[in-house]
Amino acid sequence: MTESTMNALVSPEGSLEILSSHEVNRLKDKSEGGLYRLFRQCALAVLNTGVETDDCKELMETHADFDVHLVPQPRGLKLELVNAPAHAFVDGEMLRANREHLFSVLRDIVYSHSLPNFVEGFRKDNPEDLTNLVFHILRNARVLEAGRQPDIVVCWGGHSISHNEYQYSKEVGHQLGLRGLSICTGCGPGAMKGPMKGATIGHAKQRIKNGRYIGITEPGIIGAEAPNPIVNELVIMPDIEKRLEAFVRAGHGVIVFPGGVGTAEEILYLLGILLHPDNADLPFPVVFTGLQENAEYFEMIDRFIRDALGDKAASKYDIIIDDPVRVAQTMSQGMKDVETFRRAMQDAYYFNWMLKIDPVFQLPFEPDHDNMRALELHRDQPPHMVAANLRKAFSGIVAGNVKESGIRKIQEKGPFEISGDPALIEPLEEMLAQFIEQNRMKLPSSSAYKPCYRIVSGAA
Amino acid sequence: MTESTMNALVSPEGSLEILSSHEVNRLKDKSEGGLYRLFRQCALAVLNTGVETDDCKELMETHADFDVHLVPQPRGLKLELVNAPAHAFVDGEMLRANREHLFSVLRDIVYSHSLPNFVEGFRKDNPEDLTNLVFHILRNARVLEAGRQPDIVVCWGGHSISHNEYQYSKEVGHQLGLRGLSICTGCGPGAMKGPMKGATIGHAKQRIKNGRYIGITEPGIIGAEAPNPIVNELVIMPDIEKRLEAFVRAGHGVIVFPGGVGTAEEILYLLGILLHPDNADLPFPVVFTGLQENAEYFEMIDRFIRDALGDKAASKYDIIIDDPVRVAQTMSQGMKDVETFRRAMQDAYYFNWMLKIDPVFQLPFEPDHDNMRALELHRDQPPHMVAANLRKAFSGIVAGNVKESGIRKIQEKGPFEISGDPALIEPLEEMLAQFIEQNRMKLPSSSAYKPCYRIVSGAA
Amino acid sequence: MTESTMNALVSPEGSLEILSSHEVNRLKDKSEGGLYRLFRQCALAVLNTGVETDDCKELMETHADFDVHLVPQPRGLKLELVNAPAHAFVDGEMLRANREHLFSVLRDIVYSHSLPNFVEGFRKDNPEDLTNLVFHILRNARVLEAGRQPDIVVCWGGHSISHNEYQYSKEVGHQLGLRGLSICTGCGPGAMKGPMKGATIGHAKQRIKNGRYIGITEPGIIGAEAPNPIVNELVIMPDIEKRLEAFVRAGHGVIVFPGGVGTAEEILYLLGILLHPDNADLPFPVVFTGLQENAEYFEMIDRFIRDALGDKAASKYDIIIDDPVRVAQTMSQGMKDVETFRRAMQDAYYFNWMLKIDPVFQLPFEPDHDNMRALELHRDQPPHMVAANLRKAFSGIVAGNVKESGIRKIQEKGPFEISGDPALIEPLEEMLAQFIEQNRMKLPSSSAYKPCYRIVSGAA
Amino acid sequence: MTESTMNALVSPEGSLEILSSHEVNRLKDKSEGGLYRLFRQCALAVLNTGVETDDCKELMETHADFDVHLVPQPRGLKLELVNAPAHAFVDGEMLRANREHLFSVLRDIVYSHSLPNFVEGFRKDNPEDLTNLVFHILRNARVLEAGRQPDIVVCWGGHSISHNEYQYSKEVGHQLGLRGLSICTGCGPGAMKGPMKGATIGHAKQRIKNGRYIGITEPGIIGAEAPNPIVNELVIMPDIEKRLEAFVRAGHGVIVFPGGVGTAEEILYLLGILLHPDNADLPFPVVFTGLQENAEYFEMIDRFIRDALGDKAASKYDIIIDDPVRVAQTMSQGMKDVETFRRAMQDAYYFNWMLKIDPVFQLPFEPDHDNMRALELHRDQPPHMVAANLRKAFSGIVAGNVKESGIRKIQEKGPFEISGDPALIEPLEEMLAQFIEQNRMKLPSSSAYKPCYRIVSGAA
Repeated sequence: MTESTMNALVSPEGSLEILSSHEVNRLKDKSEGGLYRLFRQCALAVLNTGVETDDCKELMETHADFDVHLVPQPRGLKLELVNAPAHAFVDGEMLRANREHLFSVLRDIVYSHSLPNFVEGFRKDNPEDLTNLVFHILRNARVLEAGRQPDIVVCWGGHSISHNEYQYSKEVGHQLGLRGLSICTGCGPGAMKGPMKGATIGHAKQRIKNGRYIGITEPGIIGAEAPNPIVNELVIMPDIEKRLEAFVRAGHGVIVFPGGVGTAEEILYLLGILLHPDNADLPFPVVFTGLQENAEYFEMIDRFIRDALGDKAASKYDIIIDDPVRVAQTMSQGMKDVETFRRAMQDAYYFNWMLKIDPVFQLPFEPDHDNMRALELHRDQPPHMVAANLRKAFSGIVAGNVKESGIRKIQEKGPFEISGDPALIEPLEEMLAQFIEQNRMKLPSSSAYKPCYRIVSGAA
Repeated sequence: MTESTMNALVSPEGSLEILSSHEVNRLKDKSEGGLYRLFRQCALAVLNTGVETDDCKELMETHADFDVHLVPQPRGLKLELVNAPAHAFVDGEMLRANREHLFSVLRDIVYSHSLPNFVEGFRKDNPEDLTNLVFHILRNARVLEAGRQPDIVVCWGGHSISHNEYQYSKEVGHQLGLRGLSICTGCGPGAMKGPMKGATIGHAKQRIKNGRYIGITEPGIIGAEAPNPIVNELVIMPDIEKRLEAFVRAGHGVIVFPGGVGTAEEILYLLGILLHPDNADLPFPVVFTGLQENAEYFEMIDRFIRDALGDKAASKYDIIIDDPVRVAQTMSQGMKDVETFRRAMQDAYYFNWMLKIDPVFQLPFEPDHDNMRALELHRDQPPHMVAANLRKAFSGIVAGNVKESGIRKIQEKGPFEISGDPALIEPLEEMLAQFIEQNRMKLPSSSAYKPCYRIVSGAA
Repeated sequence: MTESTMNALVSPEGSLEILSSHEVNRLKDKSEGGLYRLFRQCALAVLNTGVETDDCKELMETHADFDVHLVPQPRGLKLELVNAPAHAFVDGEMLRANREHLFSVLRDIVYSHSLPNFVEGFRKDNPEDLTNLVFHILRNARVLEAGRQPDIVVCWGGHSISHNEYQYSKEVGHQLGLRGLSICTGCGPGAMKGPMKGATIGHAKQRIKNGRYIGITEPGIIGAEAPNPIVNELVIMPDIEKRLEAFVRAGHGVIVFPGGVGTAEEILYLLGILLHPDNADLPFPVVFTGLQENAEYFEMIDRFIRDALGDKAASKYDIIIDDPVRVAQTMSQGMKDVETFRRAMQDAYYFNWMLKIDPVFQLPFEPDHDNMRALELHRDQPPHMVAANLRKAFSGIVAGNVKESGIRKIQEKGPFEISGDPALIEPLEEMLAQFIEQNRMKLPSSSAYKPCYRIVSGAA
Repeated sequence: MTESTMNALVSPEGSLEILSSHEVNRLKDKSEGGLYRLFRQCALAVLNTGVETDDCKELMETHADFDVHLVPQPRGLKLELVNAPAHAFVDGEMLRANREHLFSVLRDIVYSHSLPNFVEGFRKDNPEDLTNLVFHILRNARVLEAGRQPDIVVCWGGHSISHNEYQYSKEVGHQLGLRGLSICTGCGPGAMKGPMKGATIGHAKQRIKNGRYIGITEPGIIGAEAPNPIVNELVIMPDIEKRLEAFVRAGHGVIVFPGGVGTAEEILYLLGILLHPDNADLPFPVVFTGLQENAEYFEMIDRFIRDALGDKAASKYDIIIDDPVRVAQTMSQGMKDVETFRRAMQDAYYFNWMLKIDPVFQLPFEPDHDNMRALELHRDQPPHMVAANLRKAFSGIVAGNVKESGIRKIQEKGPFEISGDPALIEPLEEMLAQFIEQNRMKLPSSSAYKPCYRIVSGAA
């Protein structure tokens, strides 16, 4: 496929990031330890907004001649782009949103890669250190706004959804926007874009000029889920575990729209944490919502959760069908509960320090054939550990579907093998089959979806 | 019909209008010369946003118990609303857009009614005085922004349009917004709302925080076309003639979407002016646009114009079918031409002083049975006079359709009678029949549209 | 005297005033009814800032070749200045303060001269109408800020004061600024500048960016007391009576520094109003203050007031010697009392509607030989009438000292003659003698002060 | 001496610093490696503003019961102050400037102490690393503003100066402010405060709201030179060498007012750098200025420089006596030259990357008896090395005069001994004698100045 491309010199209007000579050198460094390769890849992903593809590898190959250079300037720093995708431009001018996203990528890559050495005695396996790391990256990205009331609604859901589902997510966003709430998503298309678009209109009607549309992504997925241009605060977290932690510590509540394995991963992660005894009394509003036609879908999810984690897990969320106003009112009330609680506890509004996250949810899970096969998928462990292992299984399937490194592994060695206790494995297999049937695995393309996993009988 | 209502005390966030005791007294004055009645009526109209009705009279009757009081406050002025339509509220709080619109109404009514006496020696039949009047009202409403590049695209078109037509007007607005252009409309639903909504998303993507969504209305129509909540600058002009003058002097270009008699009135007004010899070299971009399914509609309009006003009239506009990007690019280029011209002429960007408007387009036309019957509808006069008389004919039909006073006259005395030269009258009759057939006269309701006019054979 | 001059084309940065063609025509009109002459005179006065002269007539004569033209521009309006005083420029660029002041003059002259016809049925001798007039001019000048707590401290005092007195007024301003209070003065040098300069430093220390330095002047005096450049809100009221009313209705408290006849006029005006029975319970903080060396001066003033108006008048003010902190604390507390009262009364913070002003203080007093001789200067009338007549006497002397028309009258017919009851006239004569001795009548110049009045024995 | 004190809970209005739990823990840590002691000391210094003392040790002893605690809050972080100096408060409310300074201290101490580990492979003796360190601290303090024209005038001069000298520095600041220039100083009293105060008035007249008053200090001196409240950007650099580098890399030009040994240190540092061959063509405006009565002082300085460093050194500065307008014009022109040069070289406006600084000026000099005695004070070395060694000599005397650790060393072991080539040493001794005679060593106090150094004959 040939795509039209453009060259451009872009400057960071607004935030005007500035770099030291050290930082510039690291970004230019094309060697193994250097950041050039990562920066180029994320920059390309960011410019790919609006294109209907969720295949990172293909994206990189299509744009093999894309390049990006740092150009120091008297008034700051510019980026010179060579062979950039033309759809990031309007009449030859790069869309402001894309310009901002480019500089967000720059900022976060530079910062994340110097940070581990930042805090004296930082240990990669120390839960507290990892949480501080998440905090520092978010603070550096100016996502942590002291002095602001809790208002961040995290919206999770598929990037590959139907038109009706998309319209519904927009209407929910509209109602949230009318109530002055801000939106945070994984920043791609589908259920990650709809609520932001709706909230934009809601905010306009309420004359809210500082509405937040936060997109939290990671280098591995950004190519598959290019940030939509409404996102006005883009953060690139180093990996999925820190990204998930960013969602639950910076966000104040979660809405789940219908989705596929990525959404399932997020749900398991969230419930695994909320089930921790230390979090029993922590207010954290969670709503699953969709159209009437999604009712069955959520019944399936609900059943799966009750089976796998017990009924207590189901008490952590509300299911609301086809009622955007009630969804928004529930969140609005939830924000107030969060505020009351944090004030009483003297905990920060902008970062949920009190939320206890078990290290099993923080330590990176590397999805390869060995690790996938080794997953402990049985119910003979505490509910939050069941959630943790299921979350990893879904995480692996996401990687095999859309992440560059995952796709490569599947191409080399065939599908991941997943095994475990049939009582857990069979409902899982069934749910995955549903996702395939409903086209929730990947964006529709010419060829049918080819599973990147295989359910294998027998205990793990 | 019973509608749910609410009471509320609202304050003018943001602009904080303040009034003198004189002004407060006039607004409270329920006598003939007082402004209370007018203020109450417009306030109600403004709160009726989002409701599918274009019948002023019905609106007033449904809300007979609605009331509004001025409440002086240490920090400004509040409005106490009694039995206000509940849909203007979100969870019991009035929508910010509605609050602003209420105070815009207040501002313009107070100002317009003291203004005629403002300028010493003001004469109601002096064209220059009338233009200054329009200027003063717009300035007082802060619509005239010195120091801003030409960017105001006036969008005309029906309030009663199909879903597809609405989506198309949105996409045109989106493309305008991506190019940093602002939208000005008659401020009601349909083609008056779509472009604003689209531009809101376009502006968000370009991080444009000061995008303008200007609604220019008049007391007679506001009830039928309640301002949509995106409108962030609402102006109430005293009558249709000053409203039309405001469009063409404050706007920098015009896009016409499919519409009915109101749109036809606007087209005739605009062409009548642009055909004036003094305006021959004045850049003024005009585009007629719609979907493929509207191509026939615009052919009909184009034919009618060529027949009635001559081919030269047709050189004043472009017809662009199903191509929002080209529409936006045409406008964008047109803005640059306007800017170049005004700079060369030292004429203001914010007010088109050089545009020559013949008094026949400025002096108010009172649509009653006598005046309608007396219209000179033949081609034995200069083209701009043909346009002027046709414009009045359409104006009368609009009044008979949706304005309170017009509806009352039709109820009392039956339809307006229109007569004239068959060569002009017959195409007119045909076009009106098309409008009826395509549901462009009024919003669809339970009862079929009953024409408020009758074409009568024989010379005028 | 030759003074260096410059030509310049200046634009109204910031507020960007725009004018209608009517208004431009009136300003250009050099005929009797036109505004050109007045505008030119005030414009010159404004540019004369920083020059040590208080003689309007001399100013006009020195700059006979000064001229100002309106130049319409695409982005607004510019002013072309010919032979403007060079000290209004810094390295060839006009001081921003001067540019703003020029456009304030423009705004107020245009507005004031169309206003009397603005409000229907306006009557020049109707007290309520006059108050509304003052309100409208202040509102148009954006001096009335709804939503702001009472914070305006009016500072009165001489334009011709000693270095020590100037330093003291600065320190009082500093203490006011540290407490977040704003300053309003007659906008000239001396005690009108010191408090503003001090408050600027105080505001800087408190990071107050919206500190107000309001100067209220009138065409007759502006040449003698050119606005100092700290003034960031300049208002030109039509005459001294409306100017005084603006002070007491927009201001929330008054500090009086040592001064001459102008200050005496202000004191008498203020006390005359506060003594009105209707104002008995109205909180209105008034402080007379100065250095230790001014103690005697204030004793003289205090004695004169007690003699002329009775001890009750003296209960309306505090005298605080050499204690800027206490002065500022007194005002700060006074602001809170005003706020409490207005809130309780639902009266506006930004305009003292409740203050009762007897028409005798509103109707313009024309200081000529006949009117001055006819003044009723005896104590056989209510105290507020004594105050009113004394105020007029002082007003006449101010005019004879520094206003152009007054100076001309004195040159033509010799000094004004003032007569009355010796019990009142003698203390008056003595006080005036003190003013002369202390150089408080006019700025020191080469020639000694020549009185413009003569005290004549015998009843009025 | 007993001083009145207050307790308070203060919040960081405006910038709203937020800290991670790691950072909070380090600040609370009272152990050797913790930051509590340093933070408490700097916090106290900051609150001591306006007090006439320059003796750090005395300050700490007087306020032995002062304490500061971090109090986490839902909306950010507050500081609880116990027994804080009462003069930092206005009517019981802490001055906004002081509140901001407290949080600047917090910010810089936390940041500086994690930074060395920040950049991978950072080496304390690598010149490039040290420059990047300075950059990072300044960037974190938001002092580096991309997109701003060069406008930072560094003003050096004594903290202990005469009233006339102070007034002169104010007038120079006034003229700088009128030309839109910003001020950067060592942030204490005297010549560090005057220019800021004057510029505040100049900025007010030009309506410049974003005027910068940057104070750059270090923990060792902040107690002796408490930041004056005009300072609206306070930065605490880790030591004098980084502080000096911050001045010359962030500033765009330097004005030197009369001063003592601190000023001499700054002059030698600056000339030592400007004399480096690599900097030969770099525009860097330097002006020495003072009143007529300071002419002799500057002649002495000039002679000393020519003797010690050669005439070429003298070509690096202009001496302007008693002419604030010319000083300001020279700086204004210098800023334009800097801008032209940086644009041509593509070097940043906000940080002088191209300025070559020899490591001898970067590596910390520890002023103790051994190091002082070991200084190579002779002319048998390149001029910039002469400058470097003289700069260290002055630095040692500053420490002995006012820095806590220096004072302690002198108390323990007697004065520092300085020796060297008589041709260099004798003029030095003479100059120091002049500083003592003119009271430029320390603020005047009851006891006479007792030198902390002793010139010893004989070669180094």
